[in-house]
Amino acid sequence: MKASVATLRQAREVRDLFRPIAGGLADVERFLEREMEAAMPMVRETAGWVLGSGGKRLRPALVLLISRMLGYVGERDVRYGAVVELIHTATLIHDDIIDGSDLRRGRATANRRWGDQAAVLVGDWLYTRTMDLCLELGDVEVMRRLTWATLQMTEGEILADRVRGRLDIDEVTYMDITRRKTAELFAAACAVPALFQASTHHMVDRLLEFGRGVGICFQLVDDLLDYSASRHEMGKPVMADLREGRVTLPMILLLPRLDTRHRVIAERAATCGEMSAEDEADLVEVVRTSGVLETVRERAEGFAERAGEAAAALPAGTEREALIRAAKLLLDRRA
Amino acid sequence: MKASVATLRQAREVRDLFRPIAGGLADVERFLEREMEAAMPMVRETAGWVLGSGGKRLRPALVLLISRMLGYVGERDVRYGAVVELIHTATLIHDDIIDGSDLRRGRATANRRWGDQAAVLVGDWLYTRTMDLCLELGDVEVMRRLTWATLQMTEGEILADRVRGRLDIDEVTYMDITRRKTAELFAAACAVPALFQASTHHMVDRLLEFGRGVGICFQLVDDLLDYSASRHEMGKPVMADLREGRVTLPMILLLPRLDTRHRVIAERAATCGEMSAEDEADLVEVVRTSGVLETVRERAEGFAERAGEAAAALPAGTEREALIRAAKLLLDRRA
Repeated sequence: MKASVATLRQAREVRDLFRPIAGGLADVERFLEREMEAAMPMVRETAGWVLGSGGKRLRPALVLLISRMLGYVGERDVRYGAVVELIHTATLIHDDIIDGSDLRRGRATANRRWGDQAAVLVGDWLYTRTMDLCLELGDVEVMRRLTWATLQMTEGEILADRVRGRLDIDEVTYMDITRRKTAELFAAACAVPALFQASTHHMVDRLLEFGRGVGICFQLVDDLLDYSASRHEMGKPVMADLREGRVTLPMILLLPRLDTRHRVIAERAATCGEMSAEDEADLVEVVRTSGVLETVRERAEGFAERAGEAAAALPAGTEREALIRAAKLLLDRRA
Repeated sequence: MKASVATLRQAREVRDLFRPIAGGLADVERFLEREMEAAMPMVRETAGWVLGSGGKRLRPALVLLISRMLGYVGERDVRYGAVVELIHTATLIHDDIIDGSDLRRGRATANRRWGDQAAVLVGDWLYTRTMDLCLELGDVEVMRRLTWATLQMTEGEILADRVRGRLDIDEVTYMDITRRKTAELFAAACAVPALFQASTHHMVDRLLEFGRGVGICFQLVDDLLDYSASRHEMGKPVMADLREGRVTLPMILLLPRLDTRHRVIAERAATCGEMSAEDEADLVEVVRTSGVLETVRERAEGFAERAGEAAAALPAGTEREALIRAAKLLLDRRA
């Protein structure tokens, strides 16, 4: 009950923060809908399913809010907002194949529903189509940043695939994967509005720093939620990450302190996805009482703060305040 | 014996045709090697394996020959030659996943050797990296053409996946798939040299026409070889296409004339990949004596001629003659 009141309050606050860009977000949705309408039936069905699965459109919101902060008036922000969401969608579709995931946000994944083969092709189509959408405008610097972020995401997934199921992954490797897989696209989304206007190029580095902070904070909270949230809130089982072989920061920090019995439980879950309901309850309890979730939360706070500091050098105004507040709100999200 | 003398003669003639661009082709190889050296180990190993599997570098040769014909002096031709080969490689890697292929050019496919998951990621990496390589030069028109060709290839594979295993595919659908999956990248390779030089933009349409003719001719000969060449020559079993559910032009033309027994053999091969050695010999014999291979060859000749006609409007000289001759030589290739 307490959680759900907090969730409602947070939802209201997010809505308030995003009010100035509500029109832009609706335009992004229309843009995405038109893209799907014009696509081949298989792409429309599969990509439409993933796009319609309740994503929070955080990355488009960042593009829109920052464009507004930089005084941009035009249609590029909506297009690039949609492009960033499409790149994100392509990555989700391919990552779910790699991870063998069945569920995302409480629904079957594309690979589960249409098979790996369709999912490979639809992901390819989306990646290529986003490049097409960028090329129509010819903003070479924007394309460079988005392409670089996409390469980083692919390399991050390659690295993640290599350490899959291994409990001995170290913190440095884990943070490198997190930066590549999550933070670089957030960073690109934040930098794009400064890249398509020559007069704002000098703000690119600050915006990248802000975006990376937000992205890492976002991912660390995601890792936390995998241990702390209920199945109902996440739309997937508790410790789904661990079961799919993804050993994230809470487990990395906990491992040196884990007794043999719990280490064996964690090991079996990470290597072959097996964990009895009893062992699950037991391990979750150990994680929740160990203090590591608090430590990870502190780290996440640190990155939100770092994002806030980077934002301090950006043009003052309601948009900047909204950005700083949004970074902090990420810490309280529940799903 | 007769075949092998012809093969040797053809190999010599191809070498002669490509002599003027031998230096460029060596530069393309060095470019590809440097790319692989700089890549992550998994990409290097997997993509290097596919790049080193004896591909004929036809697409880079077209880029180089046409650049030379258009009087280009610089380094863009080598880079774009490599880019086109990398796009082609990414497509092969993803297509082999979709098709569930185990063998290509006599070697294990990437998915067979490293698994579907690695193959998805390496293909993604290659696609994105090619965009990066283009962006360094900023030739927006070149990128547009290559991106469009890549989209066409993905859509072609989506269409092909939809009719997989179905004997009732019609000729129009088949030709549409062939144009998208094979001809558009050939066309793009041919048009690129006219796109990165403003003074030659007016030749783009002719070059696209030439490239499409060459590409379709190439694919039709490929389809023929699946029925006419030996396992030794192709590095894969006879009728591998049919067994993987790809019903190509020879079978499409033959079907209305096939008796029930052979239709059942073909159907079983196309739908579940099953065919006894006896049935295989039997069906191959029917195909070879039916006259459809000759019909397909005539069609291929028609496209080679069409390419030749398109080439007639290009700048005269040894390069143009080499292009026209190369299109004809495709008809006689044996693997």
